[in-house]
Amino acid sequence: MANAGAERVPSGEIAGRIARFQDRLRLDAIAAALLTHASTLYYFSGTAQQGYLFIPADGAPILFIRRHIVRAREESSLARIVSVSGFPQVAAEIGRSSAEMTRLGIEADVLPTAQYFRIRDQFPGADLTDISIAAREIRMRKSPWEIERIRAAGQQLARMFSQVPRLLAEGQMEQELAALLEYELRAAGHQGFIRMRAAGSEVFFGNVLAGEGGCVRGKWDGPTCGAGPNPAVGVGAGTTRIERDKPVFIDLVGAFGGYVCDQTRVFVLGRLPLPLQEAHSVCMEIQNQIVAAARPGVRVSELFVLARDLARQLGFGPYFMGPDGDQAAFVGHGVGLDLDELPVVTERGRWRLTEGMVIAIEPKMVFPGQGAVGVENTWLITADGIERLTSGTDEVTCVG
Amino acid sequence: MANAGAERVPSGEIAGRIARFQDRLRLDAIAAALLTHASTLYYFSGTAQQGYLFIPADGAPILFIRRHIVRAREESSLARIVSVSGFPQVAAEIGRSSAEMTRLGIEADVLPTAQYFRIRDQFPGADLTDISIAAREIRMRKSPWEIERIRAAGQQLARMFSQVPRLLAEGQMEQELAALLEYELRAAGHQGFIRMRAAGSEVFFGNVLAGEGGCVRGKWDGPTCGAGPNPAVGVGAGTTRIERDKPVFIDLVGAFGGYVCDQTRVFVLGRLPLPLQEAHSVCMEIQNQIVAAARPGVRVSELFVLARDLARQLGFGPYFMGPDGDQAAFVGHGVGLDLDELPVVTERGRWRLTEGMVIAIEPKMVFPGQGAVGVENTWLITADGIERLTSGTDEVTCVG
Repeated sequence: MANAGAERVPSGEIAGRIARFQDRLRLDAIAAALLTHASTLYYFSGTAQQGYLFIPADGAPILFIRRHIVRAREESSLARIVSVSGFPQVAAEIGRSSAEMTRLGIEADVLPTAQYFRIRDQFPGADLTDISIAAREIRMRKSPWEIERIRAAGQQLARMFSQVPRLLAEGQMEQELAALLEYELRAAGHQGFIRMRAAGSEVFFGNVLAGEGGCVRGKWDGPTCGAGPNPAVGVGAGTTRIERDKPVFIDLVGAFGGYVCDQTRVFVLGRLPLPLQEAHSVCMEIQNQIVAAARPGVRVSELFVLARDLARQLGFGPYFMGPDGDQAAFVGHGVGLDLDELPVVTERGRWRLTEGMVIAIEPKMVFPGQGAVGVENTWLITADGIERLTSGTDEVTCVG
Repeated sequence: MANAGAERVPSGEIAGRIARFQDRLRLDAIAAALLTHASTLYYFSGTAQQGYLFIPADGAPILFIRRHIVRAREESSLARIVSVSGFPQVAAEIGRSSAEMTRLGIEADVLPTAQYFRIRDQFPGADLTDISIAAREIRMRKSPWEIERIRAAGQQLARMFSQVPRLLAEGQMEQELAALLEYELRAAGHQGFIRMRAAGSEVFFGNVLAGEGGCVRGKWDGPTCGAGPNPAVGVGAGTTRIERDKPVFIDLVGAFGGYVCDQTRVFVLGRLPLPLQEAHSVCMEIQNQIVAAARPGVRVSELFVLARDLARQLGFGPYFMGPDGDQAAFVGHGVGLDLDELPVVTERGRWRLTEGMVIAIEPKMVFPGQGAVGVENTWLITADGIERLTSGTDEVTCVG
């Protein structure tokens, strides 16, 4: 399994992805896209080596590699892979040969400004247009090959979560338990490095939060963030210690063959206070109702409204997705090569569920001074419903 | 120690850094800088929460926080910390009140293009100028407070390297040994997440490379890169297995309180082939000569030329810093909040060594088909020379 994650992306996958993206470029009247983000390059070429991928609306893509071209040629099935030193010449040719090279798509959300300046200079006649949403939306529907990898990442999580009762101990710091669980994931073949796309977002393995450590707000736009080991990192497991009868909230990310899978479970030494127990049950009920409602054609906004209204109706509105007045505005998000993929399950989300989408659904509640509870699983939208890619009980696990 | 890393940056540190940066802004005739990169924000404010830091050449800085402002106010000693929602108004005020607001500095190398567009719209009269070199150079000289943190990161590495003989085993995959060593670092208080600044650069903990795994080229602009667990990650430990009489090349990064420390050692089950043993000795000799030459006032270019010429003179030119024809153009780099800080020790490097600089010096040799050898330590430039912040023998450690 650990070896299987290192295999090349099949050429049929690459060809299909590029064809779908070219359809989208034509639909949006974009002449070509020039892509540089690591996840994007890997998705469309099979290599994450550094460079620029030029995808015209019609015709064959060209991968310009800064380094390392030998490696890129081994990993990618694209026919035309050239050194980035040839970029100015090819750019000039493209400019001359295409009278329609007016709108050139860039991923403005992740493209560094210095690279934007360079592209602007190379394509003086072009209208540089942000196509980041299109580049992200094309990745929403996963292929069976991609889903297989997300399933494998889910199996890493299953193995890791099964070890929590053995590893968790009173008085442990969040980051001490986190280190043990990160090792379990790595031993199960976890790739280590995880990508997030949103500007300023960074992640290590996720969150391991003890008691009031689950209430620390921060730069993550989610129900929990974690203090992190220090203010320089500012997210994730920190120095809060595990105490009896307080929730140990574990939100970790599996990662296999480039693809991630997201899962949260709550553990406790002893028993949770009654309001937190009830809140956890409400989160499970919210999850179950989302699952009952989810099928192709449903708008993600319907799922968000269903979740939030149920939380309010049962009296848990002030705790839903964060402390009162400071609540995250979503209850789920796509996962894939990045941890923060589309669709995002928000009140205004216009996306409709489609077969092949893979979405983490995470109804959670935060009780100031006490901690966070809730459940998260990663789900696949199927032809007629939804299938769970993560496993294990959703209940709070009481240890000792 | 693990707790000490979570402490706030002292207000005197912050004030001194801003004062030095303002001197630089005035020298470069920049009216103000608008900074957004996580390491930069942390360096100048004490918090890495998301937002914009406005530093005028004269006057008090303003930290605009997107999220989370409560956390930013707890962590930062800056007097003026406001919500980013007030940004347009303050920007307009700044624009009106300052007739000289012509040159506004941005970090173009790391600023996402979408944020560049927003800044351009908020400051319509400003000439947006790249000040990334200035923002990086200001960080070259470390304070005693910073050096203390880098030393602590070095102690993590010492503890981890001492465990290698116990943990290394024949037939292990690179990533299996890496997982064990990452756990040792985490157990020693390693913060986990490590930042790199160069566009497209990403790092997990570093490299654990077995035999010919040390020869895999890739997107890192260094002597080694590693295959990584899969082409999606593309750097670091991979699936190559450890064999007898082949080098196990371990280049890992300690990280404490935001600051990193970099060290490489070579281990072998059995004995290295003679040419690799000799090459390793040459790397140690290069290190020793660099150490003898290094003191305040020396140009980094002199150190590079000294290293490269010695490698050539001893017949190891074709292996120095990478395989023949594909060699890295440096022999050292600054470390601090990012793994890839200034100065970079290159042939053209114009920086002069200065008291307080912290530099990883890494003479290495790569033998195609056989593996990588060499040594890396992290050093502090002192008033009259250089002091080692990493520890342990530089020799190849033979195990079993």
